Amino acid sequence: MNILCNQKKLSQAITNAQKAINNKTTIELLRGILITAKEGKLIVTGYDSELSIETNIDAQVNKEGSVVVNSRLIGEIVRKLPDTFISLETDADCNVYINCMNSRFKIKGLPAEEFPQIGDINVDNEVKINQIEMRNMIKQTVFATAIEPMNPTLAGELFELRDNNLSLVALDGYRLAVRKSEIKDGVDTDISAIIPGITLNHLNSLLTDDGEICVGFDSKNIIFKLKDTKIIARLIEGNFTKYDSLLPKDHMTKIKVETRKLQESIERASLLFTSPKNNLIKISIMKDMIAITSNNENGNAYEELDVEFEGNELEIAFNSRYFLDGIKNIDSEYISIEFGGEVNPAVIKPIDGPEYIYLILPVRFS
Amino acid sequence: MNILCNQKKLSQAITNAQKAINNKTTIELLRGILITAKEGKLIVTGYDSELSIETNIDAQVNKEGSVVVNSRLIGEIVRKLPDTFISLETDADCNVYINCMNSRFKIKGLPAEEFPQIGDINVDNEVKINQIEMRNMIKQTVFATAIEPMNPTLAGELFELRDNNLSLVALDGYRLAVRKSEIKDGVDTDISAIIPGITLNHLNSLLTDDGEICVGFDSKNIIFKLKDTKIIARLIEGNFTKYDSLLPKDHMTKIKVETRKLQESIERASLLFTSPKNNLIKISIMKDMIAITSNNENGNAYEELDVEFEGNELEIAFNSRYFLDGIKNIDSEYISIEFGGEVNPAVIKPIDGPEYIYLILPVRFS
Repeated sequence: MNILCNQKKLSQAITNAQKAINNKTTIELLRGILITAKEGKLIVTGYDSELSIETNIDAQVNKEGSVVVNSRLIGEIVRKLPDTFISLETDADCNVYINCMNSRFKIKGLPAEEFPQIGDINVDNEVKINQIEMRNMIKQTVFATAIEPMNPTLAGELFELRDNNLSLVALDGYRLAVRKSEIKDGVDTDISAIIPGITLNHLNSLLTDDGEICVGFDSKNIIFKLKDTKIIARLIEGNFTKYDSLLPKDHMTKIKVETRKLQESIERASLLFTSPKNNLIKISIMKDMIAITSNNENGNAYEELDVEFEGNELEIAFNSRYFLDGIKNIDSEYISIEFGGEVNPAVIKPIDGPEYIYLILPVRFS
Repeated sequence: MNILCNQKKLSQAITNAQKAINNKTTIELLRGILITAKEGKLIVTGYDSELSIETNIDAQVNKEGSVVVNSRLIGEIVRKLPDTFISLETDADCNVYINCMNSRFKIKGLPAEEFPQIGDINVDNEVKINQIEMRNMIKQTVFATAIEPMNPTLAGELFELRDNNLSLVALDGYRLAVRKSEIKDGVDTDISAIIPGITLNHLNSLLTDDGEICVGFDSKNIIFKLKDTKIIARLIEGNFTKYDSLLPKDHMTKIKVETRKLQESIERASLLFTSPKNNLIKISIMKDMIAITSNNENGNAYEELDVEFEGNELEIAFNSRYFLDGIKNIDSEYISIEFGGEVNPAVIKPIDGPEYIYLILPVRFS
């Protein structure tokens, strides 16, 4: 390999590839990124067993070839070089020579042949989504995926397209988040796939405010295409929980409340909690106001808030972190909360803005 | 105690006091801050065995009194409350009631009587220094104090005032940093005291761009007075090393080089180092240019830099971190470096700006 490319672009491509790398791996090859020079392009790929992220940049390719190099080392070197042209060269022993202005580095590489790769995908279905919309959809749901669940489908989100309506759905046994969006550039067929939460988190860190993302599927894989970057990941097999049936049909109490004020009140009432396991807040819903209280060995907290109210008065308790997860990702100035009694789930919805449902189970208190 | 005070001011006072607190302590009392209401003021004090930091703010004192409360807990509560008046009240059981708008907290406190305090100091000598100047003086020297040295004076900095010239001096057996400054509001007598490096680090985090700091001494203690904040710390006893005799009288090689370019070159040449113990860079000084090289199991790096040169050509090696510590705190566009041969110390000085000397010992290489 012998190429010349731009420092800023190479640095960005390495940063993207690094997101795929599991820093806990002890396998030297998987701490590396694959760099391939081919047909006027430099392709930089990071991989772990779940997904690969590859970015291609323009390069003057004097000699094609590829090599694996430690991602931290080459990342730090390229980032610290001046914003000008960088030359990369390899020899027969996989040494990588990096030259830029008055700086010269020689670092040890590994043969590219051994680097694992997710093979190419023949996309059956493809859908285009605005990047900002995609990012918000993920942000409002991904936190509700389960960590190492018994049922592996709960570690992922349902990506469901029906009649040009896209839903992202996550649930973990304590709460359910559903975010919908209308798709303009749709496909004829419906899609239903389960995407790992970890893949969506990686994707979100690559999304920008600029343009669209193209999402394609085959039966086992998903591929996200951005301008110069491609993410390929495995789908989770199995059937996702029928979430429609979990949504309550009616309610006995409903309030409308200022989103940020409710968030701040719950955050303050949660300040006494020192352990993530013990963080129960009690909400007393009265006519035109609610009181939020918490109580433990550190002391107690009381917060009062004006609300619009209809239905019956109610006392109900929640895990404060789960409650906050839902409301802090809602931009609408006001939210509605529907309660079905002290042992039934509550449903939080924005008053304005995109279609979003956050359902949360109460905690019993004595 | 029963007082009313401003949220922002109370929050700032708590933040200041928290800097004194050693978060590793298992003594509940020392995780607390002392809050005292007295004569129209609220005084907030943090303490560990080395120093105390106290800040006073205006308050409407309805009832005088004092209490100790967990610093993390009250800090987080006050920080999250709205920017308006806060009322603090205590009962006979040391419970603390915090009320603000629609928020009410009750947290457990401890009796103030048990809180340790450094007694009041009768200042013998006092000197005024511009805060920005003081901050720069500390920044350019404090890193060269030793961590847990055999000789306890090396954990501190010499604060030496002679004929209205102030010197701050730190050394650790590998390098020596001396920063001087002329004092306008001086004292008649000379001062020589050893201030713990940790105290100076705490002080630096409290200094602002605004006005002067007043530094007072008695035989065992130092007191720094800012507008509303007072830091009292114990001095280190003993005699500081006679550093004057360490400064070389002459040199055999001298270069003048761009400060930031040299810093960047050494930083890049240091990227291959993965352990803090193995970070040797070699500098080859030739007519009109220097080459900086490093070399380990990861590969090698070579950096070239133009310099102004006088004297003999030389090859010399340094610990790159120690070298960088000195130059990265120099603002001058150019520095001079004087070398006395490959086994003698090098002396780095700014070409412009305040009087500063950084002396560093070379490392032998085979």
